[in-house]
Amino acid sequence: MRTVDFIRAKRDGQELAPEAIREFIKNLVEGRVPDYQASAFLMAAFLQGLNEAETRVLTEAMTVFGTELDLKSVSGTKIDKHSTGGVGDKTSLIIAPIVASAGVLVPMISGRGLGHSGGTVDKLASIPGYRTDLAAKDFVAQLKAIGIVLAGQSSDIAPADQKLYALRDATATVECLPLIVSSILSKKIAAGLDGLVLDVKVGNGAFMKTLGEARALAEALVRTGTAMGTKVVALITDMETPLGSAVGNALEVSEAVSVLKGQGPDDLREVSFELAAWMLVLGRAAKTLEAARARVERQVQSGAAVSKLRQVIAHQGGNPGIVDEPGKLPRARLQREVRSPAAGIIQEIRAYPIGMAAVVLGAGRAEAADKVDPGAGLILRKQPGDKVEKNEALCVLYTDRQGSFAEAEARALEAFVIGRSAPKRRKRILQTIEASDLKAPAKSAAKKKR
Amino acid sequence: MRTVDFIRAKRDGQELAPEAIREFIKNLVEGRVPDYQASAFLMAAFLQGLNEAETRVLTEAMTVFGTELDLKSVSGTKIDKHSTGGVGDKTSLIIAPIVASAGVLVPMISGRGLGHSGGTVDKLASIPGYRTDLAAKDFVAQLKAIGIVLAGQSSDIAPADQKLYALRDATATVECLPLIVSSILSKKIAAGLDGLVLDVKVGNGAFMKTLGEARALAEALVRTGTAMGTKVVALITDMETPLGSAVGNALEVSEAVSVLKGQGPDDLREVSFELAAWMLVLGRAAKTLEAARARVERQVQSGAAVSKLRQVIAHQGGNPGIVDEPGKLPRARLQREVRSPAAGIIQEIRAYPIGMAAVVLGAGRAEAADKVDPGAGLILRKQPGDKVEKNEALCVLYTDRQGSFAEAEARALEAFVIGRSAPKRRKRILQTIEASDLKAPAKSAAKKKR
Repeated sequence: MRTVDFIRAKRDGQELAPEAIREFIKNLVEGRVPDYQASAFLMAAFLQGLNEAETRVLTEAMTVFGTELDLKSVSGTKIDKHSTGGVGDKTSLIIAPIVASAGVLVPMISGRGLGHSGGTVDKLASIPGYRTDLAAKDFVAQLKAIGIVLAGQSSDIAPADQKLYALRDATATVECLPLIVSSILSKKIAAGLDGLVLDVKVGNGAFMKTLGEARALAEALVRTGTAMGTKVVALITDMETPLGSAVGNALEVSEAVSVLKGQGPDDLREVSFELAAWMLVLGRAAKTLEAARARVERQVQSGAAVSKLRQVIAHQGGNPGIVDEPGKLPRARLQREVRSPAAGIIQEIRAYPIGMAAVVLGAGRAEAADKVDPGAGLILRKQPGDKVEKNEALCVLYTDRQGSFAEAEARALEAFVIGRSAPKRRKRILQTIEASDLKAPAKSAAKKKR
Repeated sequence: MRTVDFIRAKRDGQELAPEAIREFIKNLVEGRVPDYQASAFLMAAFLQGLNEAETRVLTEAMTVFGTELDLKSVSGTKIDKHSTGGVGDKTSLIIAPIVASAGVLVPMISGRGLGHSGGTVDKLASIPGYRTDLAAKDFVAQLKAIGIVLAGQSSDIAPADQKLYALRDATATVECLPLIVSSILSKKIAAGLDGLVLDVKVGNGAFMKTLGEARALAEALVRTGTAMGTKVVALITDMETPLGSAVGNALEVSEAVSVLKGQGPDDLREVSFELAAWMLVLGRAAKTLEAARARVERQVQSGAAVSKLRQVIAHQGGNPGIVDEPGKLPRARLQREVRSPAAGIIQEIRAYPIGMAAVVLGAGRAEAADKVDPGAGLILRKQPGDKVEKNEALCVLYTDRQGSFAEAEARALEAFVIGRSAPKRRKRILQTIEASDLKAPAKSAAKKKR
C-alpha cells in the first residue's frame, strides 16, 4: 500500500489493516516515509481515531523494529514501572531498589523532564558520577549482575516512537489516546518486559486533567499491554498537589533516600509502596497484594532496599556515599524562603505552578534543549491541611540563578491556596485497574465519517 | 501565534483568525514552516473544514506573497479562464484568441497535464518553436503589445500554492473544497485579473464526479473570488465524454484550429463559445450574454480569432504556419484503428479510460516527471448516438511507442459502451453560476468537534 493511500484510508475513517500498519511503521523506521507524510497520518489518526485492534498492531509494530536492547537472555521476571509524569514524582528512585531487593528484576528505562514535569533521568544524573547512558550490552550485564538498572532511553529502543514523538510535539498531535498508548508501551515492551505497573497521574500537574481522561488512558494501556502478552496494572494517582515535599533533582534524590530509610512524607511513601507492591505481585514475589505490601515494608525496614540503591549507584559510576551523606549531593548556592501573605489553613498546593517555579529556578526545562541545574528546586514547608501564620515560610527556593527568585516566588505563591477551614483530605491513590477489571474489548470499528 | 498552536486551533475545529492565517502563509513562503507542520495543518483543515471567511483570507494571503508578475501596469480589462481539467479539453486554445480579438486582454496562465487529464501548456508546447516559459517582463510586454499571452505557470506566482499543492498530493489532502478554491484562485488572482470564467467539469473524466460536488466547488469559487473583488462566473460542463474528437497535444491543437475556422465538433464549439461569451461579458465587451454570443460568432466568422492565434504563436516563437498547414504539427509515427467488437449504437464514451489510453500512448503523464510525446494521442471516429458496424473503427491511436497499442486499445474499448437503442442526448453545459445566483454567505463558523 502506498503511504498516501494509507493516509487516505485513515483520513476517511477506515479501519487500517494490520499489514498496512506494519508496512507503514517499517517504512517509517527505514526512512522511506517523509516527515510530511507521517505528520499527515498523525493528524488523521488524531481526528479519526484508532480502534483497539489498530492501537495494538501499531504498538506491536513499533516494538518490532530497531531494538538493540534484548532482555530475553536474562532469566528471571522483569518488571518496570512507568509514570505519565508529574511534579515531585521521585517514586522510581524508591520503588526500583525495593522491588529489586526482593528478587524481581527491574530494568528501568526513564525519560528526561520537560516543562513542569520532572524526569527520572535528570534526578539520577544529579548523583555525582552517575552514568545514565548505558550501552545495551552493559545494560544487560548489569541486570544479570545486580538485578536492577536505572538508565535513560537510548535511540535504539523503539525508533518509530522517537520519530513519531518528535513530530507529534510539533504538529499538535500529542493528546491522542491511541498514540499515547503506543508511545508508552512500545518503549517499554520493546525491551522484553514481563510486567509493567503504570502510574497514571491526574490533576493540574499531570498530563491528564480529569479522572475520566486518566481512566480512559489507564484502561487503554492495560487493555493494549495485556493484548500484547504483558502483564499490566495501572494505578490512577493524584497530581493536583506535588508528591512529597521536594521538587528538583538532587532535592528529590535526597527525599527518596529518606523514604528508603523509613522516613519521608506520608503521601510519597503511600504511592511508592503501593506501586512497588504491585510490581512484586506482577513479578510473582508475592501471592497477594496484601502480602506484597508487607514485603515492601520488610524490604525497607531491613535496610535491603537502601542497600540495593547504594549498589545500583555504585554500579553505574555514581557516589553511593550520597545515601548516607546527602550533603554530597549538589545544592544550589542561593536560597530564599517564600512567606505566607496571610494566616490560615493551606487548602491546596497546585502542582503546576510549583513545577513551573522549579523550571524557573533551573531544575527543569522550558525547552527540550535546555540544561538543568542538578541542585536547583524547592522544598515545600507546608502541606494541605497545615496551619500557617502570616509571614511564615511556605516553601524554600534553591537556585544558582539570582534573577529567577522574583518569578519563581510569584509562581510558588500562585500555587498556595490559603483559607479558613480545614480542607477535605484528598486521596492519593484514586483507582487501580487490572486486566480483569476491563469489560470485553468493544468491537468498535474506527469512526466512520464523510 | 506559534505554528503548533495554529495547527491545534484548526485541529480543535476553531475558526482561525485572519491575522493567524496571514502569518502562517507568510512563514510558509519564507521557509519558516517545515513541511511536516504544513501537512499536519492541511489534514486538520481537510477534516475540520475552513469556512468562507477562512477560505477567503487564506486565498488572499496566498496571492500576496512572492508574486513577480504584476499586470496592474497594463491598462485594459484582463480576463482569464480556468478549467478544473478533463479529457480532450482544448477550449483555451479556442477561447483566448476569440476573446483577445474582441479587445479584451487575455493573460492566460496554464498548467501541465497529469494522469488522464490534459494540460494546455503541453498542447501549446506541441507547436514547433513555441515557448511557454516567459519571464515576467516579457509576459507583461506581450500583453501590452498584442493583448494575449498563453504561457505556463512560473514558480514566482503564488509560491504558497506551489508548496501546499506538492504536499497535498503526497498527503491525501487534495480533495478538500476550501484548499482547492484557494489553490485555483490564488494563482489566477495573484497576477491581477479583473475577471475569471471557470469551467468546472463534472463526470468520470473530471475531478468532480457528481453534479453536487461540482456545484459546491463552483459556488465556493464564485463566492470567494467575488469576495476578493474579482468578477467570477462558473459554468458546470459535462466530462462524462471527452470534449471533441481529438485527445493528445498536437491532435488537439489541430482540432482547436478547425473550430476557429468555423468547423470542428459541435460539442467543443458549444462549450468554447459559451465560455468565450462569458469572458466578453466580464470584460465588458458585450452588454448582454446574447450580444456576447453573437460577438463570438462574428470574431470566428470574420477570421479575426484565427488571426489572433497566428499572432500569439508567432509572438511566442512558434510556427504560425501550423494554423494553415496542420501537417507541420508533430504526428506520431505509428497508428492503429480500434475496431468495434459489435454492431449497435454508441451509448457513451467514457472520458476516463480514453484519457488513460492517451497516457499509455505517450500523450500524457502517469507521473509528474514523465515526458510527453507531442504527436501521440487518439482521434474518436464515433460519438455517442452514432451507429457503428461490427469491425468499424471506433477510434484511431497514434503513438511512437510500439508496445503501447495493446494496453491503449484495451482502455479505449473499455470506454465505448455500445447498445441497441438511441441514447438520451446529454447536455454539455449543465449550469451557470454567477455571484448574483448565490445566497447571502452563510454565517457558518468552522465545524465544531470534540
